[in-house]
Amino acid sequence: MSLPITLNSSQPDGEEDSLFRIMISSDNHLGYLEHDQIRGDDSFQSFEEVLKVAKREKVDFLLLGGDLFHHHNPSKKTIIRASNILQQNVYGQKEHNFQVFCYDPNFKNENLSIELPIFIIHGNHDDPSGFENFSSIDIFSGCELNYFGKVSNYEQFSLYPILFIKGNTKIALYGIGNLKDERLFLALQNKKVDFNRPEDYSSWFNILIIHQNRFKGHHVGKNKKNFLPESFIPSFFDLVIWGHEHETFTEPVKNNEIGFHVYQPGSTVVTSLIGPEAKQKGMGLLEIYKEDFRIIPLKLETVRPFVYCNVRK
Amino acid sequence: MSLPITLNSSQPDGEEDSLFRIMISSDNHLGYLEHDQIRGDDSFQSFEEVLKVAKREKVDFLLLGGDLFHHHNPSKKTIIRASNILQQNVYGQKEHNFQVFCYDPNFKNENLSIELPIFIIHGNHDDPSGFENFSSIDIFSGCELNYFGKVSNYEQFSLYPILFIKGNTKIALYGIGNLKDERLFLALQNKKVDFNRPEDYSSWFNILIIHQNRFKGHHVGKNKKNFLPESFIPSFFDLVIWGHEHETFTEPVKNNEIGFHVYQPGSTVVTSLIGPEAKQKGMGLLEIYKEDFRIIPLKLETVRPFVYCNVRK
Repeated sequence: MSLPITLNSSQPDGEEDSLFRIMISSDNHLGYLEHDQIRGDDSFQSFEEVLKVAKREKVDFLLLGGDLFHHHNPSKKTIIRASNILQQNVYGQKEHNFQVFCYDPNFKNENLSIELPIFIIHGNHDDPSGFENFSSIDIFSGCELNYFGKVSNYEQFSLYPILFIKGNTKIALYGIGNLKDERLFLALQNKKVDFNRPEDYSSWFNILIIHQNRFKGHHVGKNKKNFLPESFIPSFFDLVIWGHEHETFTEPVKNNEIGFHVYQPGSTVVTSLIGPEAKQKGMGLLEIYKEDFRIIPLKLETVRPFVYCNVRK
Repeated sequence: MSLPITLNSSQPDGEEDSLFRIMISSDNHLGYLEHDQIRGDDSFQSFEEVLKVAKREKVDFLLLGGDLFHHHNPSKKTIIRASNILQQNVYGQKEHNFQVFCYDPNFKNENLSIELPIFIIHGNHDDPSGFENFSSIDIFSGCELNYFGKVSNYEQFSLYPILFIKGNTKIALYGIGNLKDERLFLALQNKKVDFNRPEDYSSWFNILIIHQNRFKGHHVGKNKKNFLPESFIPSFFDLVIWGHEHETFTEPVKNNEIGFHVYQPGSTVVTSLIGPEAKQKGMGLLEIYKEDFRIIPLKLETVRPFVYCNVRK
């Protein structure tokens, strides 16, 4: 893959001019328990908080890891509430001092003024289906959302990154929206996924965002393909952002064998009565400067407290 | 009701500068027979044609008379197809040389560039419901659509017009989205609807757009309230635009007793196997200059031909 641009050697080298700031969130599950009079608003409130904090932090963009919607066919009410939250937070006047290649983001549309660009892959709750391969995310794609990572041939596919350049920092962002775990397992195991890279890929910060089972759950029994082994992910990646798993980790974890880090933002709403969901929920502010990065954990204030413990008989 | 503005006496009096051009369509029924392999696209194609013709004609705005959606809870597929058609046709660069008062239209939103403003009321297929009183039209309200005519208290309500001014032509547009026929019948019969008017209302061109049964159908039996008698509509109106009835009339009909004209655009897709649906379908280009108006009928080219006749045994 050859680069679509020639880097200008006179790019500013000020740290600020080359510092990417990206808010990361996942599994917002809009519409979860929407008919519950007490908890019905929870998913919307926390999603709105994510957007408001992202705007307050003036990030370059917000990156969402799938399961924006809880129901595969969201109700009219959920779609309208999502529409209102997006309309109120995405639009606005802001200059975006970074470049995007290999994707037409909404803020390049001369008819829209976008304050908060959002890039998003789908999860298993909002994966595409039907003859047209539509996901509910498509409702907002092009205007409020920049949807990527949709795969049409599950057995063999090519991935092209979205390229971001800010000063001297270059990011190649690859996304794979949720696929049935077995399908992705087999496609990766059989080397049927082609990761197209810039020729000088080692000078890029390479990110993969996925939405799959991270661990071989005990409940899956003998089926050992119901998750994505980290060892199947190419080693040229610097950071893997893992959606689908609801437990929030504040720090990225390094895979010492392969070299990349894995960051798991967790969900923004509790959807299962299990211990890991009782941990403090949050989002991550990813800062990237050339090859260096850090993730600043931010707590979500709107999440309903949830206590999980064992009680003796 | 006092006017929110003072008319500038130096307004241009050129005919072009004072000529309002408004495209009228109704009952687009997006999603009608969406699973039918042959007719599934029909509603979308004709709606898209309406938008494209409205853009080609460079009208000031498009006015829709309700039942944009066929199903009360439109499918994800229908919402996405509607979203795509609206996105592709509503946005664009255009200067709007008329003023709007008592409503914030989308083209006044500094974050959006709107080429084709659309004003719309709901019909009986997409009327608001639930605790929040949401209509499917709300999904697009604020961005692609300017939704008005929603009533929250059915027994007694006040109507405020949207005011449009272009040169020396002034329009007061009143909308009542569909109400159960009996409800509106009783509210109007009992004088419980308050039509707020500009003080100099006689110098305005007063339009009412509604979505109700126009005729007392034989099938309703003894119930005589299942329609809206024209005599219930105040006589200060110049033009009544009647949605819900699917038969297309090319000409407005004058009610000689009351004085106003009634224009019935009809549907853009055939949804019943009855004679009136077999007539040529179309839309109307309403031109208003001061107190004068005319409606230029335009044929729809995309409507599937439908022949209705009696066959002898």
